[in-house]
Parts: sequence; C-alpha cells; structure tokens
Amino acid sequence: MAVTPTAELATAETFDLNTWMADRLQAVEQALSHWVVEDSPAGLGRAMRYAVLDGGKRLRPLLVLAASQSADTPNTEAAMRAACAVELIHAYSLVHDDMPCMDNDVLRRGKPTVHVAYGQAQALLAGDALQALAFELLVPEGGGVPPVLGAQLCLQLAKAAGVHGMAGGQAIDLASVGLPLTQAELERMHSLKTGALLQASVLMGAACGQVPARALAELAQYGRYLGLAFQVVDDVLDVVSDTQTLGKTAGKDANQEKPTFVSLMGLNAATDYAHHLLSMARAALDRSELPQVQALHALANLVGSRTH
Amino acid sequence: MAVTPTAELATAETFDLNTWMADRLQAVEQALSHWVVEDSPAGLGRAMRYAVLDGGKRLRPLLVLAASQSADTPNTEAAMRAACAVELIHAYSLVHDDMPCMDNDVLRRGKPTVHVAYGQAQALLAGDALQALAFELLVPEGGGVPPVLGAQLCLQLAKAAGVHGMAGGQAIDLASVGLPLTQAELERMHSLKTGALLQASVLMGAACGQVPARALAELAQYGRYLGLAFQVVDDVLDVVSDTQTLGKTAGKDANQEKPTFVSLMGLNAATDYAHHLLSMARAALDRSELPQVQALHALANLVGSRTH
Repeated sequence: MAVTPTAELATAETFDLNTWMADRLQAVEQALSHWVVEDSPAGLGRAMRYAVLDGGKRLRPLLVLAASQSADTPNTEAAMRAACAVELIHAYSLVHDDMPCMDNDVLRRGKPTVHVAYGQAQALLAGDALQALAFELLVPEGGGVPPVLGAQLCLQLAKAAGVHGMAGGQAIDLASVGLPLTQAELERMHSLKTGALLQASVLMGAACGQVPARALAELAQYGRYLGLAFQVVDDVLDVVSDTQTLGKTAGKDANQEKPTFVSLMGLNAATDYAHHLLSMARAALDRSELPQVQALHALANLVGSRTH
Repeated sequence: MAVTPTAELATAETFDLNTWMADRLQAVEQALSHWVVEDSPAGLGRAMRYAVLDGGKRLRPLLVLAASQSADTPNTEAAMRAACAVELIHAYSLVHDDMPCMDNDVLRRGKPTVHVAYGQAQALLAGDALQALAFELLVPEGGGVPPVLGAQLCLQLAKAAGVHGMAGGQAIDLASVGLPLTQAELERMHSLKTGALLQASVLMGAACGQVPARALAELAQYGRYLGLAFQVVDDVLDVVSDTQTLGKTAGKDANQEKPTFVSLMGLNAATDYAHHLLSMARAALDRSELPQVQALHALANLVGSRTH
C-alpha cells in the first residue's frame, strides 16, 4: 500500500480513502510500536508486541480517527491515544480468546497465536498487561490529554470492555455454543462482544472534539449499525472465504456449532442484511449533518467490501 | 469481628485498630458488593462476585483508606472507589494466577478457585472484566470524583497493574522457577509482582487529599518497605503455617521450586528481615510528619503479626 505521510485531511471533493487510510495506518503503527515497548521484565513486552504489531485491519483505530475528524477542533494527541487504546483492548481480547480454554485457535493474522508462540502463561499475562496499558495511554502525565477528556475516555473504554460490554458478550458466546439462538439473541451477543468496542471507538473519537448532542446520537447509531454489519460480514466470510485469505481458521464457527447470522438466515439473506445495516449506518451519518464525515462513510464502505 | 458502623476516625490517644478496621472493612465489603453486580450476561457477574466477595484480608483497600486519612481534606468518595479498584485488580490477578496454565491452584481464601467453580473460560473472562471494572470505578459520571483526580488514579493504577508493575513481576516469577536468584533479583521481582500495587494503594489514597511533596515521598517509602515486608512474611508463612490457616495451599513455593526469602536467607533471618523492613516503614511514616498516620502505623503492625 502506498504511503503518503504528509497527506492532509482531504476536502469533500477530493477525499481519497486509500490516501487517508495509508496515512493514518502508518501513524497508528508508529504509535503502537512506540507505546508497546519491548524493554520489559522477562520478555513480556515481546509477547505484547507480537500480539499487537504487524497485523490487523486496525478498523477500531481508524474509526476513532475518522470520528475525531468529524468533530470540531479535535485534540489529535488524545485521538491517537484513544485509537491505540481501543486497539490494545481488541488485541488483548484476541490473545485471551485464542487460548485453549476459550476458542483454542492456533492461527491469528496469519501467524501462530500468542500462546502457541510464547506459552499460555505468558499469553495470559500479555493480555492482562495490554488491557492495563490501554488505560494508561488515555491519561498521560504532561497535559497531552486534558484530564476531563482522559477521564471520559477511560470511562467509555472501561464500559465497552467490561462485563456489560465485550467481556459480557464473550460470556454469552461461550454459553451459546450448540444453542438455537433467535436473531434478537444473536444480535444482543454481538452488540456486546464486538459492537460495544466498535461503537465506543466512534464515540471516543467524537469525544476528542466538539460534537452537538443530536449529531452525537447519530454517530452512536452509525457505530451501532456498523458494528453489527461488521459481525454479519464476519459470519459470511467465515463461510465463503479460506483460511489463507482470512489469516485465521476459516469455517471455525460452523465446526464449533456456534450460532451465526449465516446459520440463522442463510448466506444470501445474511449478505443482504449486512448491506442493509451499512445503509442504515450511512443514513445516520447523513442525519448527523456533520460536515466532515467522508472518512466515516468510507469506513462503512470498507466494512461492506472487506475480504478478511 | 465486632463491627462498629458509626466509628469516627479516632484521635491519636484513643486510636483502636480493631474498631477502625471493622468499620472500614464493612464499608469496603458493602461497596464491593454494590459495584460488582450479579446482574450480567451469562452469569459472568456471579463468577466476578465469587472472586471478590466473602474473603480476603483487604489489605490494599485498608491502605488506600488509611493513606487518604493521612492527607488533608480527603475526598472520601474517591478514596472508597480507589480502595475497591485496587482490590478488584488484586482479585483479578489471583483468578488468573490460580489458573492451570499459571500456578494451577485449586484453593483460595478457603474456597475452590474460580476456575474450579466456574470453569477456565469463565475465570479468564471474570478476571478480564474485573480489571475493566477497576478503571470504571475511578472515573464515574456525576462528579463524585473530580476528573483531574480520576485521571491521576487511573494512571497510578494502570502503571502498578501493567507490564512495569504487577504483570511484569508475574512474568519474572514464571521465568524464575528453579533458578538461583540473588536477593536483589528476588526483591525486584516482588517489588513489581506485589509491591507495585501495595505502594500504589498508599499513593492513590494520598492522592485523594492534599499531602506535601516531601511527606508524599516518605509515604512512597512506607509503601515500598511495607510491600516488601508483606512478601517476606508471605514466604515465612508458606513454610510455617498450614493450608487451613492460610486458606490457600501451604508449602506451595517450595514444591514449585520457586525462590523465596526463606530459601535464600533461612527462616530466622527472613523473619528478622521482615521486622527490619517494617521498622523502616514506620520510620518513613515518622519522617513524613503527617499528623494522622495511626492507621498506617497500625497496618504495618498488622502485616508483621498476620497469620494468613
């Protein structure tokens, strides 16, 4: 992918997702590499870097940065810290989710999973330390993030990651294997397991600047629909894609008798549903009447067209 | 233990640790029970409550509350939230530490460990959710904790829990089994594994009020010596006590070929060293010249006299 380090936020007329994304992805990778340090006790930092760097679509950081750009006078330092914090939470959840006592997977982002590469104990600790680091990033010393904003970001992230967010959704997921969930139950599970952190990414980005309350409510809707669409696409890809393209084990959900949108609705209806959800996300953006939502629009398109 | 709910902070002349502790312990138990809710997806809250409630010495919360009382005009709401937050971090670390891929222990606080009672996957998630909840407690909506203070507490807790604190110390611990550590190496491991959170408990409590910089440096010394003494006493108890009194498996360290202060120094010298460290902790308190340090003094005595 071409990188244009000096790319400025493009105007509506010239917005180019590839340029925007290349620029932001490079900045996110640099920031993650800077903050997840290798120098650490007993090699723990190496396992943490392995879990975080050189892989991942970085959808959550891109959502944070795109949402921050939709806000007025965004704090770019805070936005980059929030972008990396949500990615660290996502990365730790993958490390723990892949462990033998959970999904027991050996392949992630095309590489051996962390517990395969470093052992289960180190994987457990690396995940734990990544979660702590996520919160540490949001409240730096030295004034880069005003404390009022740092505290707000911590609260948003903690709620999205915790028992009434991601962790709770994973508990439902574990308890649902082999059970005939309704679509409403499946959507609740995913709204917590992946939706909460995706929606929080949008709202944390928006919190880094000024957004009118009515527009903020629409951004929350955008995040909700986008998060659900992301999961429906994930279920479709688990069926139609192969392990090499995905970078993780394909066909896993069906093998584990996990309920999915495809098993519930069929492949065609699930694909249609994903497109419907994305159109709802775009409609929410339009209703927000925020001037700078090109990147958020483009990320919705990206979710619809992704292959892994 | 007798409970005196209305006990006020006693004066220097009448300070009674039992009354002070009974009052604070009841308040901490009530707060933890209020904040770690059972109502949650897929029973995750039950596993979290099992990990946190009805057990534990609550040394860390007591340190937070005692340190906050040594400060001028402490914010009592913030102090109770910080007290519970450090205990949630401690509780999550025990849940993960007891898992088969770590210490593989089946008994904790006299009860089956969380993974024995709820399964490994639920134990992993309960620990993860407890860590998120710890940070959530520190930055509540509604103004109970000023954002400047909430952000500072989050930073202190994240550093103490993370790769350069507790998690890093656990990584050293794992890597040290069967190795002949020097005393300096053993102290470094414990200064991270248990010392960082114990010291943070003192400093987070102090942060809830006003403490002059010089006195704060002495409180940091107090926390450092107390934390190390706590670990030396732990090693002594692992040898001289029995499983029923400890509420966890006795003799475990020796069986696992873990280096301890007893294996390094011998039992008598380790006991003497604990008392020396506690006298250093008390001396730091005296140098602080803070007027209200009776509870901190009493907690140092408690660490020296504990049997489990």
